[in-house]
Amino acid sequence: MSPELPQPLGGNEMPRFAGPATMMRLPTRESAEGVDVGFVGVPLDIGTSNRPGARFGPRAIRAESCLLRPYNMGTGAAPFESLTVADLGDVAVNTFDLKASVSIIEQELAAILDTGCRPITIGGDHTIVLPILRAIAGRHGPVALIHVDAHADVNDQMFGEALAHGTPIRRAIEEGLIVPERSLQIGLRGTGYSSDDFGWAATQGVQVIQAEQLWHRSLTPIADQIRERVGDHPAYLTFDIDSLDPAHAPGTGTPEIGGLTTVQALELIRGLRGLALVGADLVEVAPIYDSSGNTALVAANLLFEILCVMPGVAYSAE
Amino acid sequence: MSPELPQPLGGNEMPRFAGPATMMRLPTRESAEGVDVGFVGVPLDIGTSNRPGARFGPRAIRAESCLLRPYNMGTGAAPFESLTVADLGDVAVNTFDLKASVSIIEQELAAILDTGCRPITIGGDHTIVLPILRAIAGRHGPVALIHVDAHADVNDQMFGEALAHGTPIRRAIEEGLIVPERSLQIGLRGTGYSSDDFGWAATQGVQVIQAEQLWHRSLTPIADQIRERVGDHPAYLTFDIDSLDPAHAPGTGTPEIGGLTTVQALELIRGLRGLALVGADLVEVAPIYDSSGNTALVAANLLFEILCVMPGVAYSAE
Amino acid sequence: MSPELPQPLGGNEMPRFAGPATMMRLPTRESAEGVDVGFVGVPLDIGTSNRPGARFGPRAIRAESCLLRPYNMGTGAAPFESLTVADLGDVAVNTFDLKASVSIIEQELAAILDTGCRPITIGGDHTIVLPILRAIAGRHGPVALIHVDAHADVNDQMFGEALAHGTPIRRAIEEGLIVPERSLQIGLRGTGYSSDDFGWAATQGVQVIQAEQLWHRSLTPIADQIRERVGDHPAYLTFDIDSLDPAHAPGTGTPEIGGLTTVQALELIRGLRGLALVGADLVEVAPIYDSSGNTALVAANLLFEILCVMPGVAYSAE
Amino acid sequence: MSPELPQPLGGNEMPRFAGPATMMRLPTRESAEGVDVGFVGVPLDIGTSNRPGARFGPRAIRAESCLLRPYNMGTGAAPFESLTVADLGDVAVNTFDLKASVSIIEQELAAILDTGCRPITIGGDHTIVLPILRAIAGRHGPVALIHVDAHADVNDQMFGEALAHGTPIRRAIEEGLIVPERSLQIGLRGTGYSSDDFGWAATQGVQVIQAEQLWHRSLTPIADQIRERVGDHPAYLTFDIDSLDPAHAPGTGTPEIGGLTTVQALELIRGLRGLALVGADLVEVAPIYDSSGNTALVAANLLFEILCVMPGVAYSAE
Amino acid sequence: MSPELPQPLGGNEMPRFAGPATMMRLPTRESAEGVDVGFVGVPLDIGTSNRPGARFGPRAIRAESCLLRPYNMGTGAAPFESLTVADLGDVAVNTFDLKASVSIIEQELAAILDTGCRPITIGGDHTIVLPILRAIAGRHGPVALIHVDAHADVNDQMFGEALAHGTPIRRAIEEGLIVPERSLQIGLRGTGYSSDDFGWAATQGVQVIQAEQLWHRSLTPIADQIRERVGDHPAYLTFDIDSLDPAHAPGTGTPEIGGLTTVQALELIRGLRGLALVGADLVEVAPIYDSSGNTALVAANLLFEILCVMPGVAYSAE
Amino acid sequence: MSPELPQPLGGNEMPRFAGPATMMRLPTRESAEGVDVGFVGVPLDIGTSNRPGARFGPRAIRAESCLLRPYNMGTGAAPFESLTVADLGDVAVNTFDLKASVSIIEQELAAILDTGCRPITIGGDHTIVLPILRAIAGRHGPVALIHVDAHADVNDQMFGEALAHGTPIRRAIEEGLIVPERSLQIGLRGTGYSSDDFGWAATQGVQVIQAEQLWHRSLTPIADQIRERVGDHPAYLTFDIDSLDPAHAPGTGTPEIGGLTTVQALELIRGLRGLALVGADLVEVAPIYDSSGNTALVAANLLFEILCVMPGVAYSAE
Repeated sequence: MSPELPQPLGGNEMPRFAGPATMMRLPTRESAEGVDVGFVGVPLDIGTSNRPGARFGPRAIRAESCLLRPYNMGTGAAPFESLTVADLGDVAVNTFDLKASVSIIEQELAAILDTGCRPITIGGDHTIVLPILRAIAGRHGPVALIHVDAHADVNDQMFGEALAHGTPIRRAIEEGLIVPERSLQIGLRGTGYSSDDFGWAATQGVQVIQAEQLWHRSLTPIADQIRERVGDHPAYLTFDIDSLDPAHAPGTGTPEIGGLTTVQALELIRGLRGLALVGADLVEVAPIYDSSGNTALVAANLLFEILCVMPGVAYSAE
Repeated sequence: MSPELPQPLGGNEMPRFAGPATMMRLPTRESAEGVDVGFVGVPLDIGTSNRPGARFGPRAIRAESCLLRPYNMGTGAAPFESLTVADLGDVAVNTFDLKASVSIIEQELAAILDTGCRPITIGGDHTIVLPILRAIAGRHGPVALIHVDAHADVNDQMFGEALAHGTPIRRAIEEGLIVPERSLQIGLRGTGYSSDDFGWAATQGVQVIQAEQLWHRSLTPIADQIRERVGDHPAYLTFDIDSLDPAHAPGTGTPEIGGLTTVQALELIRGLRGLALVGADLVEVAPIYDSSGNTALVAANLLFEILCVMPGVAYSAE
Repeated sequence: MSPELPQPLGGNEMPRFAGPATMMRLPTRESAEGVDVGFVGVPLDIGTSNRPGARFGPRAIRAESCLLRPYNMGTGAAPFESLTVADLGDVAVNTFDLKASVSIIEQELAAILDTGCRPITIGGDHTIVLPILRAIAGRHGPVALIHVDAHADVNDQMFGEALAHGTPIRRAIEEGLIVPERSLQIGLRGTGYSSDDFGWAATQGVQVIQAEQLWHRSLTPIADQIRERVGDHPAYLTFDIDSLDPAHAPGTGTPEIGGLTTVQALELIRGLRGLALVGADLVEVAPIYDSSGNTALVAANLLFEILCVMPGVAYSAE
Repeated sequence: MSPELPQPLGGNEMPRFAGPATMMRLPTRESAEGVDVGFVGVPLDIGTSNRPGARFGPRAIRAESCLLRPYNMGTGAAPFESLTVADLGDVAVNTFDLKASVSIIEQELAAILDTGCRPITIGGDHTIVLPILRAIAGRHGPVALIHVDAHADVNDQMFGEALAHGTPIRRAIEEGLIVPERSLQIGLRGTGYSSDDFGWAATQGVQVIQAEQLWHRSLTPIADQIRERVGDHPAYLTFDIDSLDPAHAPGTGTPEIGGLTTVQALELIRGLRGLALVGADLVEVAPIYDSSGNTALVAANLLFEILCVMPGVAYSAE
Repeated sequence: MSPELPQPLGGNEMPRFAGPATMMRLPTRESAEGVDVGFVGVPLDIGTSNRPGARFGPRAIRAESCLLRPYNMGTGAAPFESLTVADLGDVAVNTFDLKASVSIIEQELAAILDTGCRPITIGGDHTIVLPILRAIAGRHGPVALIHVDAHADVNDQMFGEALAHGTPIRRAIEEGLIVPERSLQIGLRGTGYSSDDFGWAATQGVQVIQAEQLWHRSLTPIADQIRERVGDHPAYLTFDIDSLDPAHAPGTGTPEIGGLTTVQALELIRGLRGLALVGADLVEVAPIYDSSGNTALVAANLLFEILCVMPGVAYSAE
Repeated sequence: MSPELPQPLGGNEMPRFAGPATMMRLPTRESAEGVDVGFVGVPLDIGTSNRPGARFGPRAIRAESCLLRPYNMGTGAAPFESLTVADLGDVAVNTFDLKASVSIIEQELAAILDTGCRPITIGGDHTIVLPILRAIAGRHGPVALIHVDAHADVNDQMFGEALAHGTPIRRAIEEGLIVPERSLQIGLRGTGYSSDDFGWAATQGVQVIQAEQLWHRSLTPIADQIRERVGDHPAYLTFDIDSLDPAHAPGTGTPEIGGLTTVQALELIRGLRGLALVGADLVEVAPIYDSSGNTALVAANLLFEILCVMPGVAYSAE
């Protein structure tokens, strides 16, 4: 391990319930310069159509991430032994204007990407994936999108608006930010306005895997499918916490029953190892709807697992 | 779709967190006349032996049902395209007298059934299934009962009382309201006073499927079994939310571990399509024991799924 | 009592935990035509700078208002014996665009006012008072404003925006919607950016009564002062629930310690009897921050008290 | 101090969060024989018209009473130095039949009273005061009643029923269980069906002190008034936790704003010292509506204060 | 059934929400003399490294155990028909000194073991397994350890301390309290300081089964493996509630995602029938992190299942 | 205002729900060098005798302090215009050993004091005031102690231990760390083991003001008394959040009814302006017992008020 790599503050130096509430107790960096992977918070929730509160997602996820130790016992990943990882703080969104915030987010993410850093964004509601994908495509061109979610987010409009947490994937496809033939939507379920709700993306070439196809199954084979479809194309993972069943992630704005277990989520994310991930996000944690704090804890763990499959992460000899 | 059929109020007309808190944001009807399927609340919980609060079940389930859109993405069901569905409001139970309430409920349900409407009742504790079955049998004769529950509810007495939430199925069998040979109890588990606790119904001819038989399994084959046993006999579904594991439905009065997942509940209910259902209920949601509101959300979704398997529901071309 | 006046549904007809969750269990009216005083919900919270959730204010307040009986035991007011009071439902705000919502609210309130109805609005965050005052001034000309709040809400901008829950009073004064010489701000306290935070309104002629002046005191003499200042001018009351101390109203977005008790709030509102109130609102109840539901209950009670001081309310012989 | 008097288990012998969850960590007695003052739980809540949950009052109050030490620092009372005090356990109510429970309670309380023990009952909803007063009057004749409550509880009927938590005081007066001329109702407030709601008891001779008369005041002079009115007549105190403001006691079924503070409750109870109290109760704690547990803690403290003013309690030299 | 065997208080004698809050509503015994299996609380949580609150585990688990009836419907076990089972109360730990508490616990457990009683301990944090194992080994010699947990608890030190909830298994192995070759650790997962975190016990001969090996599987075959490995050696089961997934047991101090379901826990424990269990414990329930109370309910059920596999338990004819 | 003074991050630069969760959104400093007043967290709660959780006090208070703006509207104090104020982070306590932690805290506080910085400590349980006073006395000699609390904290021992959250003031007096003749205890109340519980400090010369003396009163005259008694002696303020009534501060470990309001707390603290305060602390916030987060919010506000009365704070022209 390079001695200069930043390390999470250990529990033997400072109790886990104390110390700075940064992501994984990592050092904060004001700039992404020299950072391989940077966690960045986007505390926006005015794109939410039902329960609000995802604005507190970044703070709560950071607080619960204090329990994470640096080594992945399930996979052997040791991200801090080979990468410079830091907490880049929060994007200063305009909480009174959704359209203005979308611009701010694109700009801030573009600045991070310009340094060569791969951002892992902590949401915030799912509207944020549109400006992120704009910035990503600006840097890397259209990407393969791995979209894990209960909802397709391909509405043309919500209440007459083109921008909301139920429309970003439609916009992203329309704007050519992703490569449909290399993209997937996984975990869709619930109720819709018509059968078209999940069908539009498929007509654009995206592969749609509904939740029903995942019930009672390991997702390791699904991850194999994903890897095959994505290939070595630059890829982006957007993970909506409501892809999980409400039993596992109660603290979210539009929960849908019949969802993934955390076991399945772990299998899915771990199976992405080897892809050319240029960034990722985890969105829609609304902490106030979860009095135990465990939805944020689940999110913190999944963010760590996402970190562990970023290119360049060291793994212990297996 | 017939233009006169009542439709749920859409999220693009009124935000989902606003507007009338009726079931699925459907119009309210004072009478069941002309209604194919009517949701009716029975806010009774004085038959409860442990944690109370199911009296707030109807209100909470209606509130959380605001998230439901009209089309079932999992099965293609589009109930509002072929049926007149309405919210019939609540039965005015006498919350100070259980026996009086049982009479009131039977009377009110009989009045609904007299119009030809098929009621889906929102409980309330499980005592209510007795007066409902009395009304159902009064209209349709003895029915095939599909009873999904953690408990057999076949106690002879509770604290010396013949009426309580642990006795209705015994009473229903004794009174000849159901056809045991076409009936099943599914999901029973936990602790009892003796092995007889689950055995009595079996001795009367009811098929009992304990939870242990369902572990790690899809319930689609179980639903096949149910359909075969019930045949084309008029059937009634009573679904106790505590059939679910407390991880999925924490807000209930007598939770038992080792229960169904929502995935299994969806498989079970969806598998009932084609049966001659004359009514159904979902009972025992005690919202105050679930700070996130998600137990009511689970219930709202399952009630929608029950609606989707009522006879006459349109399905999109498959 | 005129037999045609709509009455709240009584607890002896339907248990209070059941029945329609309308304001005070009153009938709903689609139009304000013929309604003397109408409750209207404005479920907007995207003007909030800190904790969101006021979008669920109208639903929660209506639910908790089920406990209210029709007669005010403290004052003898019997509003339903002389006035037609109804629940007018919710304004369909655009939850994705604050500016658009402000227009919608103004339009909807103007339509209600056009019928001669006096609206009592259930918020929602405090941004909504601006479009309401625009509609009010459009109908009645500039009004005397009685503004009860922890915050002055006279920021010039928040995050560069002219519209947000911290700016409406400044806008209202700038736009000439109120008559400063007849207006007051009551209960201001806490922290600010500078001494100017509370001073600006005073420079415009508004009387400012900080919370410190109210500590340990009955507010009956304050109400006397208010009545004297307002005189017989058309008056509007805007009541922010955070004027109350967090001990009394925990469920709000920007709580400030050292606030009013409910006793003081009752004294204040009851003391407004006799004023020419043309409307009122109660805002900033964020129910999810109050697990007992009691903040909504406090709000429901205060809304009833506001109803009781509307012109034309009958009082029992005293 | 007599060495044989039972003492609460001390915090230096067993941590306060551990050990038996009896009232004040006192020994349990199966019989009241030889007990001067006995705490008895009556876990009934099916007389409740709104939020249920008072059935868990006795368990929660006992659990929170673990924090109480044996000496009253405010008054010098040392009840365990002169009295035999014990926890008599719970009355086995029939939770499925209110009328049956009322009989059971009367019988059980009569048995306790027969031993000469003075019972302090832990409710349960307020219905229970009727059977208690029947037993009390059976033993001591009609008593002076000190009734502290937000509600008069003098409804003639609720939903057509003579027995419910809103009727017991009317029944008690009608049955001649109390002496109106020596009785008082303190703290009444809120809304009612008509001005008669509080007036009936007054017409029977009971003195009614509405909450408004208590605002901003010490209750020590009120207690003086009570003592004067009661004189040396056998007296009974029934204390409804909803006499307190919801800020102080959120966990109750029918909260009313504008109520007593705990300071006022302490003044009131402490001021009863010297009366010939033959029993007392504290009712309507519904713990699940109070996530902190503090309503039960308030109740435990007030029950201790009630114990401290029972006849025969030793006081330290003053 | 021997008529003298103590029986749980039945729900038809005393409502389940009332009566003494002892484990399973069993009688309390001050001494273990004559008791076959005794439940004992150890309310220690100062060995916890993250969220505290396990000190309230025994009280909460006892309270929720009120729902348990005496007969195991899943397995036919009827423990109270053949064994004397009692609640032995709590160990009076020193909550201000971890090392002193460890001594106290060893002493108290040794005293229980001396009577021939097999203790089932209700924690408390996992530190307590060290003094328990010391007492167990003192009585029975080194035992086969069945350790179900998310964490290996084999840290050499935590914050420089040899005693903490993350070290007891290392100490136990070092002190020769267990027989590694007959011992297992089951359910380990999450993050660690290095690959060594789970490896050390394996180097000592303990079999380690990580959670990943259990995903999507029945644990009945795992239980077969355990029985084979343990053989007829005296065995001890230590069950950390955080072995369960946070969806099933949110109320714990250091939750880890991807854990066991309650179904798997039931399979595992039921599969231990036939082993020579000399004691067991269930630890790390922190009730305040679970507003529904269901984590304590899960724990109460698992403790009952553990009781059901103790040697000598009667089973109904199968 | 000196341009170099650190300023809290404003709400117009970064939404208040986002950005670094430092105290008042101030910059963090690793060393106290050059800092006039430094906030320091001491996340210790193993000295607690009842409910734990104060270890999360610093994190929760910092999180809720995000709502604070830099100017005190009640008093005109503008601390950041004249002082260098910073967040010094947390002391790395040993959460497994109370005695070791006491040493660590003394050492860390001494280091801060050595720089000339005046520390405001965020607890943690009240045990921490002993090592703080040791460090304070080491720097400044014995101080005048202003001790605001429900409890005297002068037990000789708790469970045989000299160090615990109920003993620090006795130890401090015994060790000569304070000047009794210039010290006060304010707000004491509740129950005790004997009258001596509050009397010991008085016998040592400390002035004791019980809560009863403060009921229904402004504390401004009490503050006058305090200032007179303390004079210009170096003074230290220790503020236990449980001095407040549980209505105002539910989230604490040993709540006592009949306590201060936040209004009284504000009067008390504001009245200390002009004293030679060399440090202060606020202790015993246990956030998990307060689901709204408002206890931490109250604490954050009181800590700001304490900052505002530190010597050298600028006040706006009055």
